[in-house]
Amino acid sequence: MATIPLGRYLWERIHQVGVNTIFGVPGDFNIQFLDYIYNVQGLKWVGNQNELNAAYAADGYARVKNAPGVLVTTHGVGELSALNGIAGALSEHVKMIHVVGQTPKPMQESHMMIHHSIGDKPDHQVYNKTSKFLRVAEAELWDLKTAPDEIDRVVRECFIQSCPVYIFLPLDLSMEQVPSGLLDTKIDLSLPVDSNAQQSAVESIIEALSKAQSPSILIDAFVHRHDAVEEARKLVDKLQIPIYTSNCGKSIIDETHSNYVGVYNGQISSPGIAAACETSDLVLILGCMPSDTNSGGFSRNLAPEKCIHVNPRDVLIKGKTYLNTFMKPLLTGLTVALPNTPLHKLKVPKLPPPFQYKDSSATHITQSWVWGQFGKFFKPGDVIVGETGTTCFGLCDTTFPANIRFVNQIYYCSIGYATAATLGAEVARLEVQSAKSQPSGRTILITGDGSMAMTIQEIGTMVKQGIKPIIFVINNNGYTIERLIWGARQPYNDIVPTDYSALLPLFRHPNPKSSFHKASTKVEFEDVLKQPELQEPKDLQIIEVVMQMKDTPWRLGAQIAFRGDSAKKYLREEGFVDSIGGWGLE
Amino acid sequence: MATIPLGRYLWERIHQVGVNTIFGVPGDFNIQFLDYIYNVQGLKWVGNQNELNAAYAADGYARVKNAPGVLVTTHGVGELSALNGIAGALSEHVKMIHVVGQTPKPMQESHMMIHHSIGDKPDHQVYNKTSKFLRVAEAELWDLKTAPDEIDRVVRECFIQSCPVYIFLPLDLSMEQVPSGLLDTKIDLSLPVDSNAQQSAVESIIEALSKAQSPSILIDAFVHRHDAVEEARKLVDKLQIPIYTSNCGKSIIDETHSNYVGVYNGQISSPGIAAACETSDLVLILGCMPSDTNSGGFSRNLAPEKCIHVNPRDVLIKGKTYLNTFMKPLLTGLTVALPNTPLHKLKVPKLPPPFQYKDSSATHITQSWVWGQFGKFFKPGDVIVGETGTTCFGLCDTTFPANIRFVNQIYYCSIGYATAATLGAEVARLEVQSAKSQPSGRTILITGDGSMAMTIQEIGTMVKQGIKPIIFVINNNGYTIERLIWGARQPYNDIVPTDYSALLPLFRHPNPKSSFHKASTKVEFEDVLKQPELQEPKDLQIIEVVMQMKDTPWRLGAQIAFRGDSAKKYLREEGFVDSIGGWGLE
Repeated sequence: MATIPLGRYLWERIHQVGVNTIFGVPGDFNIQFLDYIYNVQGLKWVGNQNELNAAYAADGYARVKNAPGVLVTTHGVGELSALNGIAGALSEHVKMIHVVGQTPKPMQESHMMIHHSIGDKPDHQVYNKTSKFLRVAEAELWDLKTAPDEIDRVVRECFIQSCPVYIFLPLDLSMEQVPSGLLDTKIDLSLPVDSNAQQSAVESIIEALSKAQSPSILIDAFVHRHDAVEEARKLVDKLQIPIYTSNCGKSIIDETHSNYVGVYNGQISSPGIAAACETSDLVLILGCMPSDTNSGGFSRNLAPEKCIHVNPRDVLIKGKTYLNTFMKPLLTGLTVALPNTPLHKLKVPKLPPPFQYKDSSATHITQSWVWGQFGKFFKPGDVIVGETGTTCFGLCDTTFPANIRFVNQIYYCSIGYATAATLGAEVARLEVQSAKSQPSGRTILITGDGSMAMTIQEIGTMVKQGIKPIIFVINNNGYTIERLIWGARQPYNDIVPTDYSALLPLFRHPNPKSSFHKASTKVEFEDVLKQPELQEPKDLQIIEVVMQMKDTPWRLGAQIAFRGDSAKKYLREEGFVDSIGGWGLE
Repeated sequence: MATIPLGRYLWERIHQVGVNTIFGVPGDFNIQFLDYIYNVQGLKWVGNQNELNAAYAADGYARVKNAPGVLVTTHGVGELSALNGIAGALSEHVKMIHVVGQTPKPMQESHMMIHHSIGDKPDHQVYNKTSKFLRVAEAELWDLKTAPDEIDRVVRECFIQSCPVYIFLPLDLSMEQVPSGLLDTKIDLSLPVDSNAQQSAVESIIEALSKAQSPSILIDAFVHRHDAVEEARKLVDKLQIPIYTSNCGKSIIDETHSNYVGVYNGQISSPGIAAACETSDLVLILGCMPSDTNSGGFSRNLAPEKCIHVNPRDVLIKGKTYLNTFMKPLLTGLTVALPNTPLHKLKVPKLPPPFQYKDSSATHITQSWVWGQFGKFFKPGDVIVGETGTTCFGLCDTTFPANIRFVNQIYYCSIGYATAATLGAEVARLEVQSAKSQPSGRTILITGDGSMAMTIQEIGTMVKQGIKPIIFVINNNGYTIERLIWGARQPYNDIVPTDYSALLPLFRHPNPKSSFHKASTKVEFEDVLKQPELQEPKDLQIIEVVMQMKDTPWRLGAQIAFRGDSAKKYLREEGFVDSIGGWGLE
């Protein structure tokens, strides 16, 4: 009987479900089974500068590739460093497989005081116990006989739940042999759908839609995470009702769609949007993720009785829940079941004119101006990575072209995420493009100075890999989002002064001068965007965008001001730029 | 009755126990109580570039200051990012207080889907549960009435156990008022010593010593962590028996001491050391930390019946354990109880000549040469921070002058630690120096390229703070310690090519050119060490030390080779430099 090492089995299985790149950091308890990666045709290793960055990169990869992001870390020191990135994937329903190389079984059994341990009779499983709450399944491999099945089981769970899973692999076990024939039967990734429940839910949705006069649809984050983007696109084509997205759901439906209205973010929306959405007599909400940051500080005003929720694993209609439905097949079922003659043929509502910015005559780059410019710069096929902070608020006002993938972490909001996630996103974009022979897109990161500092070394990995994201870093002297909340002038909101022109030389970029750009005025910014290097980059590009410390996208200011009078008073007294007057709330 | 906010109370208490600097990263659930730091005279804030770095910095601070290292993080994203640094402090018995700003109580009670959470009805305590195994005590502040006592309790535990503790502080609770009079009674930091047990242990130790003909003393890591350095120094002065240290215990006793023999690292020791130590008929071991990395791969060959262990919280003599003794008072008691006329007056054993290096004629910088040079460069008062990897093995062969504090993480071995710990160590050194009006010392980091990459942004914090460590980075093209273990030529052991001359410009160092040095040959290295900037630095200095990829301190090679013939074969076949021949084992 032909056999392969268990470590090789693991990588083959992971490759079979659509993964082409493994992220991580080598350590002496994973290093020997990293070798097996090179045995798997079509699978490659991208080493990261540290483990948190590896987790973020895997997250970015998963979101663009529609396959799990996979990272490998070593016992203790490695796996713990990655934890925050894993928690983010759990929060945001991102498929991730975290493979941890553990100490060999005899060391564990004898409680050996091996490096990376804790105490004089260390429990080598303490790190496994630590990450328990930050995953949906784990394979604690110990017994060679059950190990292949356990790997298969958690890979399946990763897909079903669209969340992180762990595989703990003692180093010695990785070299033991399992039958290679096991690879011939693919892992069953089918969703355990209750067909009756799905059928009933579909019927109820159609019935509700039929009765509604002015229904609309709200597209939210989990549509993307649960791989239902194509299904949602087909559904809206058939529905012909007004389409809204959440902040986080932007790009799931092309904004060029004739039924697209805009971003509904509760009361923190562009003029007329909230009223239009909230006067619908039925709102079909797909993949709802109603965190404060994705709902205008919980200011969505949609009466529960007029909402239908199509959630990742259930449907909620007028107080009744249909369990064990899954978004992707349910949306397909719904689209098929809808009559070919649309139930409605609603036009998009007529909206009042958008906010007029009071600072439009400024020559320096303003928050009220810059996001519109990004809209002109983006092209179909681009992957846009937006950092928590001013960026994700600002991008709500950017009109995206068709066929954009928007990567953000709007619920979990861990700053530093976006820079490292860009590595994974760009690696995945190139893989997808190469597989589809698609016309070229670009991966475009927009981040802030404080956020980028957290994970800045991962730009080095991008240079080493020869990939070519375009990185905009907003230099506005520190943590502007924190200043808006508290301590506008406190030194804790200052960061390390940074000369971004030295970043590409640091990482031995081949063209450090021509690939670095800096803009402080609107004219300079417009000039930079026209550069051929940015239109079709041949290597990694950095653009430093100098903006004022107390300038903020109106949506961010408005969301803070929405908390009440004392927040408004604080913003006024500290002199934050209020480009729309009264933060649009007065 | 005068009152102060609970947040202020917390910082005052922390300052009272010897802390002058708080590390961390602001976030919206800690930011308001960061303000209270500025209300405490003598307490300052040093913001870090990310939370893992903050934990490492706090660890470095604690080791030099002999007070807890304190860091503040925010709910979820912040606290999880720091976890690996906390685990390291637990492994290595470093006093640390991790203050976590949690979401306000009403948000927790309503399971609000606030950013940084997980799930649609989030348990805000999930992160607290996650770190449960990585601390020795926690104050979960919820009730204002008990909060001050809880803070006091865990600060006391931090000292007693010399390990990390947590304080979870919901943001809103930090602003509520507590009586300021509570500050008048200092926290009781006295150790809960069982005096009878201590007395019996002291008597037993003296009896055993009296009967011994050739006793010796082995000084290990926990002497330092449990604040018993001065006590150990007094003890050895009175004992007059040969003194050995572990790798990790170096610098606790001055190497200039007339009884000092050398580093006993099991069979991986300089010629004659193991035989000399192991033929003692009694070995008094203080603060034993027998991890593989601190014991020559568990090759200490000391029969248990001839060892006395003075552990942090107990004493073990000939199979009998004396519980609830504490190292610091026990050593004092022992020193006092010893007769004034020494029981022994033993000379240091005569050792064979040290290894002769086969590559001594090389003009490039070799591992066999460089560590001796560092010995000439170090001066009394210096703090030396050694990274895991080649450095901590190499430094075993460096003779330290008197009055050195050696910071290392030889058990937990998390690479990246040393760079960020240097920030804390240097901040603490300056505080200690300023308090004692001591002659100037320096903080000197020696790290590797792969390790530094993990936490490189913290060099920016050092520049911003205007502190002046001297940073040696060994550029040898990747993870040399990993190459020695496995995959010598595998790409996973390559790192991002880095031009260190760009590092100081990146962080806007005031004198980036004159403060950067590079040496590739022995002559260049000797020249660099003579530079006045390095003798008495006025600002942060970086020295890039170019060394060969497969060169290694003999001790590291020997420890790998000690695993057996296949390891030796691997090292030979891959062409690792064997400067002493047969790794000293043949």
